[in-house]
Amino acid sequence: MLGRVNHVAIAVPDMEKGIAAYRDTLGATVSEVQKLPEHGVSVVFVELPNTKVELLEPLGENSPIAAFLEKNPSGGMHHICYEVEDILAARDQLKATGARVLGDGTPKIGAHGKPVLFLHPKDFFGTLIELEQV
Amino acid sequence: MLGRVNHVAIAVPDMEKGIAAYRDTLGATVSEVQKLPEHGVSVVFVELPNTKVELLEPLGENSPIAAFLEKNPSGGMHHICYEVEDILAARDQLKATGARVLGDGTPKIGAHGKPVLFLHPKDFFGTLIELEQV
Repeated sequence: MLGRVNHVAIAVPDMEKGIAAYRDTLGATVSEVQKLPEHGVSVVFVELPNTKVELLEPLGENSPIAAFLEKNPSGGMHHICYEVEDILAARDQLKATGARVLGDGTPKIGAHGKPVLFLHPKDFFGTLIELEQV
Repeated sequence: MLGRVNHVAIAVPDMEKGIAAYRDTLGATVSEVQKLPEHGVSVVFVELPNTKVELLEPLGENSPIAAFLEKNPSGGMHHICYEVEDILAARDQLKATGARVLGDGTPKIGAHGKPVLFLHPKDFFGTLIELEQV
């Protein structure tokens, strides 16, 4: 079911410092900041040869990463996103095994404009997993 | 400086359950267990098309992931490993910017038989970064 690792998402409390660390200190190519108010985050993409890292900073009220940053004020790895071919088939297969899909199980349009679902971290050893149909 | 994402490492408290989740629930290809007593971990590789996820379980006394699992008993994302061409050049460039390299700065031979270094998570927003010379 799992395809490519689409991205690893890292929550940062300060995007400017995050960009400086990945661009200047680590020497990676970092995109411009995209503000995604409908997702409650600002994001930059750290482009690696085989996948990308996304830095996420809270944007506006009720950001989905606000609680994570309260628990981890310095930031940290927030989730890993795997590509799937058919998100509804993946969802049904996962639910049949007892894995918990967050929300009501209906895919939402994610930050890349593609259908996404999140799986409960308690079913995957503390790792929040995003599935994205590509 | 940063090359490919070589792997994302996830610490799990129970390797058999970890394997079952990734192989049976998520439908990924998972390697046989490798015991690496000199590194204090058992490891399996979850093979994805563009990179791999490594599941780590403590092995023996003084495992380097024991403290992490005490803090995160369910497990969690432990580190991300980037490939670099020249680990000594990378180290010197990082130290020149003030980033902290763990240990005495001498690369050690990592779990893949290649020279590795770890960078201080406090300099990278709570993310433990491994650099591996490939």
